[in-house]
Amino acid sequence: MNAEIIAAGSEMLTPARTDTNSLYLTARLNELGIEVVGKSIVGDDRARMAHMIRGALARADLLLITGGLGPTEDDVTRDAVAEALGVGLHFNEEVCAAIEARFMRMQRKMSEINRRQAYVLEGAQVLPNDRGTAPGQWIEMGGKIVILLPGPPNEMRAMFDGQVSERLRRRVPPLVIRSVELRVAGMPESDLDQLIAPVYTRYSNPATTVLASPGDIQIHFRARAETEAEAEALLKELVDQVAPLVGDRLYTRSGEALEKVVGDLLRQRHATVAIAESCTGGGLGERITSVAGSSDYFAGGFVTYTNRMKIQLLGISEELLEHHGAVSEAVALAMACGARQRTGATYALSTTGLAGPEGGTPETPVGTVYIALAGENSASARRFQFLGDRGRIRGFAVHYALDMLRRALAATE
Amino acid sequence: MNAEIIAAGSEMLTPARTDTNSLYLTARLNELGIEVVGKSIVGDDRARMAHMIRGALARADLLLITGGLGPTEDDVTRDAVAEALGVGLHFNEEVCAAIEARFMRMQRKMSEINRRQAYVLEGAQVLPNDRGTAPGQWIEMGGKIVILLPGPPNEMRAMFDGQVSERLRRRVPPLVIRSVELRVAGMPESDLDQLIAPVYTRYSNPATTVLASPGDIQIHFRARAETEAEAEALLKELVDQVAPLVGDRLYTRSGEALEKVVGDLLRQRHATVAIAESCTGGGLGERITSVAGSSDYFAGGFVTYTNRMKIQLLGISEELLEHHGAVSEAVALAMACGARQRTGATYALSTTGLAGPEGGTPETPVGTVYIALAGENSASARRFQFLGDRGRIRGFAVHYALDMLRRALAATE
Repeated sequence: MNAEIIAAGSEMLTPARTDTNSLYLTARLNELGIEVVGKSIVGDDRARMAHMIRGALARADLLLITGGLGPTEDDVTRDAVAEALGVGLHFNEEVCAAIEARFMRMQRKMSEINRRQAYVLEGAQVLPNDRGTAPGQWIEMGGKIVILLPGPPNEMRAMFDGQVSERLRRRVPPLVIRSVELRVAGMPESDLDQLIAPVYTRYSNPATTVLASPGDIQIHFRARAETEAEAEALLKELVDQVAPLVGDRLYTRSGEALEKVVGDLLRQRHATVAIAESCTGGGLGERITSVAGSSDYFAGGFVTYTNRMKIQLLGISEELLEHHGAVSEAVALAMACGARQRTGATYALSTTGLAGPEGGTPETPVGTVYIALAGENSASARRFQFLGDRGRIRGFAVHYALDMLRRALAATE
Repeated sequence: MNAEIIAAGSEMLTPARTDTNSLYLTARLNELGIEVVGKSIVGDDRARMAHMIRGALARADLLLITGGLGPTEDDVTRDAVAEALGVGLHFNEEVCAAIEARFMRMQRKMSEINRRQAYVLEGAQVLPNDRGTAPGQWIEMGGKIVILLPGPPNEMRAMFDGQVSERLRRRVPPLVIRSVELRVAGMPESDLDQLIAPVYTRYSNPATTVLASPGDIQIHFRARAETEAEAEALLKELVDQVAPLVGDRLYTRSGEALEKVVGDLLRQRHATVAIAESCTGGGLGERITSVAGSSDYFAGGFVTYTNRMKIQLLGISEELLEHHGAVSEAVALAMACGARQRTGATYALSTTGLAGPEGGTPETPVGTVYIALAGENSASARRFQFLGDRGRIRGFAVHYALDMLRRALAATE
């Protein structure tokens, strides 16, 4: 089975934006053994979209359409599919009631225009949306399957994973696809690739994909075989060669985020962590608490963006700040120790740096970040020099801070 | 004139990559007054690509195809265009000589396979490539223009800017495109659309696009006219009708992020803000400090994730916490007042809520968030009920907190 994907929305035809939902869908479809053979983006134009849909259906067995299911005039996907397939579109009381109930849960009244979202293609099955108002639809015709999914990524993903994936799996020949995701912290993608490419390029099965975000790399291996045991064996052979090359920079073999891995380590050790953030402004706390249940090990802490706050909230001396400057190893250490003392947490992490774009000097250029970790018996700090814009530098800082704690926790095993 | 863009290359149909050449081309085409009405990606499959090309030419006046002009077997763009247009493909001695000369300048010998790149569509003009071996082509047929460009971005850009842009400009009527972006906080997309659709749907020029993220809506208007003054007048006419409908929920007419608008208001008023975050865990501080120069008005504050930290760092009484619960108006107010007092900031914002997925009760379901703002002479709190997953609830909370401060600042004008 092969598939095409159409993303609906004029905003994705502007110079600054494009469709990214299709990347997620491609990954999931590939896991099912379904190849994506074409992708398109079309604006909010019914006739044009209908023409594109007919074209895609002439080429592919399966068509996924994301977006354009909202309540407004420019949400034309339902109408375009009806036109392309030559089927009617009927108001569905049940769907309307579900949308209305959702509004009631939010203690609001449903707008009249949301009734538009209750129109269902003749012969289609409704895919309820528990994260938004737009229900999806699944319709089959002439041996082809067309699936309408909402545009907001969180709604689209939940609907695909919860309601589409398993239904598709039953329609494709049994091919077992098993994958494993290694994650690596603290090295550049090109260095990692130079290290592991000589191994993974020798294999077409498992297939390898390497993805990088600031400080973090994901290595996906995907094996296809007739049986699960066979697929697992293929994966094991490759992982057993790659893992030793990466060493302790490998922080998970099961694709978890670094903040989740760190949280689990803290919980296992009955330890807690506090924060004292300057250049990251709260981003470290935000990331630690993005994990549900993080109150088990996250106490809280301080955002001390100005020198005055560093003095007032963390008890750092004016002399220290004056002598070393706010962006210094000494201040990073004092911040971490101050936060640990004031919160009573087992560990405290601090960040202080220059995220830019202004304020750099030859000695302390933009991208300089000191990260410190205070623990029960010791405190240590490291200087980093990150490259990129403000968001990227702050992202690196948060990631490396978490990795510093991970290494400390791993060492206490 | 309108255009479609096709990117050729199987690698852009994998989960990790997509086409970005089209973003550059869209920007350049829009400057010429040419609208992009569709974009597609197709793999290295001649028949499929030919089918896509015929589809695009049925919809658009101009078709740009990037990639697939290399020397290897999987470079099928030339053949696909020949098939789609029903024209021949002829070996061109002159083009071959130019490719050979390029190899000689690099002191290398041309491979036999590079001869494939010297095939030219019947009736096409060759677009020499001074940065690579693949020449582009420009062919017109039946009132349509098809342009073949190389895939490597630097080659594609140089060829478009040097050889295509000016030629296109002579073919399109002089047209100026101007756009404006309004942003609205604190109302759902469907409510907003119901309010403004009766106005904007009366206009096809300016064109309107409405985009939403948690708590935040962007309204893009794009006007086309023969002169800049005319385009600006078209925009003004529409904005002057829409803005009064939205009222004080409209926080910018120039597309800035809410945190930037709030920061500018604080700076103008020589005011500062501090934070006391519970359920958002640092996300509010992170967002405020994502703006360069935010140290002018952001002092810092507290992340108090546990009750103990609320007591210890913010001086909230145990009785208050016990009596009202951590997720309550009273605690939100006490957090904001405590943070303001301890930092000396003009304002302090606090958040306390249940981001889930666990921990909800009938009285306080997941998604309940109290946000408080303490100012010079008063403090106020509001209860919100947000829907969605953990990330979405936290995103809403940060956004509504910023908007609460914006409104307070606007009122002090």
